[in-house]
Amino acid sequence: MSGRDGADAVLERLFAIIESRRGADPETSYTARLFARGIPKIAQKTGEEAVEAVIEAVRGDTDRLAEESADLLYHLLVLWAAMDLRPADVLDRLAGRLGTGGLDEKKRRNG
Amino acid sequence: MSGRDGADAVLERLFAIIESRRGADPETSYTARLFARGIPKIAQKTGEEAVEAVIEAVRGDTDRLAEESADLLYHLLVLWAAMDLRPADVLDRLAGRLGTGGLDEKKRRNG
Amino acid sequence: MSGRDGADAVLERLFAIIESRRGADPETSYTARLFARGIPKIAQKTGEEAVEAVIEAVRGDTDRLAEESADLLYHLLVLWAAMDLRPADVLDRLAGRLGTGGLDEKKRRNG
Amino acid sequence: MSGRDGADAVLERLFAIIESRRGADPETSYTARLFARGIPKIAQKTGEEAVEAVIEAVRGDTDRLAEESADLLYHLLVLWAAMDLRPADVLDRLAGRLGTGGLDEKKRRNG
Repeated sequence: MSGRDGADAVLERLFAIIESRRGADPETSYTARLFARGIPKIAQKTGEEAVEAVIEAVRGDTDRLAEESADLLYHLLVLWAAMDLRPADVLDRLAGRLGTGGLDEKKRRNG
Repeated sequence: MSGRDGADAVLERLFAIIESRRGADPETSYTARLFARGIPKIAQKTGEEAVEAVIEAVRGDTDRLAEESADLLYHLLVLWAAMDLRPADVLDRLAGRLGTGGLDEKKRRNG
Repeated sequence: MSGRDGADAVLERLFAIIESRRGADPETSYTARLFARGIPKIAQKTGEEAVEAVIEAVRGDTDRLAEESADLLYHLLVLWAAMDLRPADVLDRLAGRLGTGGLDEKKRRNG
Repeated sequence: MSGRDGADAVLERLFAIIESRRGADPETSYTARLFARGIPKIAQKTGEEAVEAVIEAVRGDTDRLAEESADLLYHLLVLWAAMDLRPADVLDRLAGRLGTGGLDEKKRRNG
């Protein structure tokens, strides 16, 4: 079994569903509509959901943070799909940081 | 076994490590330093990583999008921990949208 | 004449108009509707317009950057008004950095 | 005299100073360093300052909102300069919305 236990099931399953809607009718599928509008628009929605999550955190509203976080993850998955990136590509990077202390050696790259 | 297959292993494991560093020395642990600086600062970093991910997507740089997405997920997990939110709280919302078509019925709430 | 030459006319005039719409009918005035929805919502719109400006810049679309920048400034002015901040409060800080070289001594505060 | 009264002095003067530093030494000038790093990096900094302004507004800290707003405007001006956009290009769009009620007819383009 891989370091990811073949898992991260929700993300993988949601990603598969998202992929399956690439060719759906934009009139009836929000996901298909996002794909049709292109990467800059999907990126915009992702950024907007991040802004909403940030605001709910600062407001201290845990329930709405959960809701906006789910929206953020959904749009991020669509963005990955549109860029031909798979969840494993990202999760493996996260996994690589586990157990190595790497997270705490993260350097601020841009000052 | 839950609908999430007990999985989402990377996120769950990373979250556990993050939680374990709450009380670590801010001088040596970046995660502990984030916790010490408080929720607005953690939210700020999360928002900044989202901006970076958005930019790499628009630039069409898949590899850097993967990198920035990993940074975004890491900071989002720290934000959840700081707000006493667990990954399952968010993933269950995502899972609840699977198979229900709910994603495509998502209404834009704010116009 | 002040260091700002009594000017920054557009910003000051737009700000005055925005202030005058605080009590207008939210049904007919977008500005009044923003005020009615409160600071977190105005802040959210400001953040969203910033994301759009960022994307247009990275796409290299000068005309749309101008358009999104105007939207950003408008929402920022509404945010200032909602927070009882006047344009002069911000512009004086900018002016204070002129001629002093202060801009280039700007330190990154948060690493 | 134009509709802008020849004014918006701070923005125009700051913009002129920013332009004058395009060719300065990146080692000693923060502005020159920004230009040297390119548009995606300038856009990133602009987005980050917007996130900070959003957070200070939601926190209700007027003084820090003023400070972050000044930082946001400065980076936005550098972004305009890097994109060969002049303040008048943006301010004229704002001015065009004054007195026309146009602001309140603003349609949400992206739903």
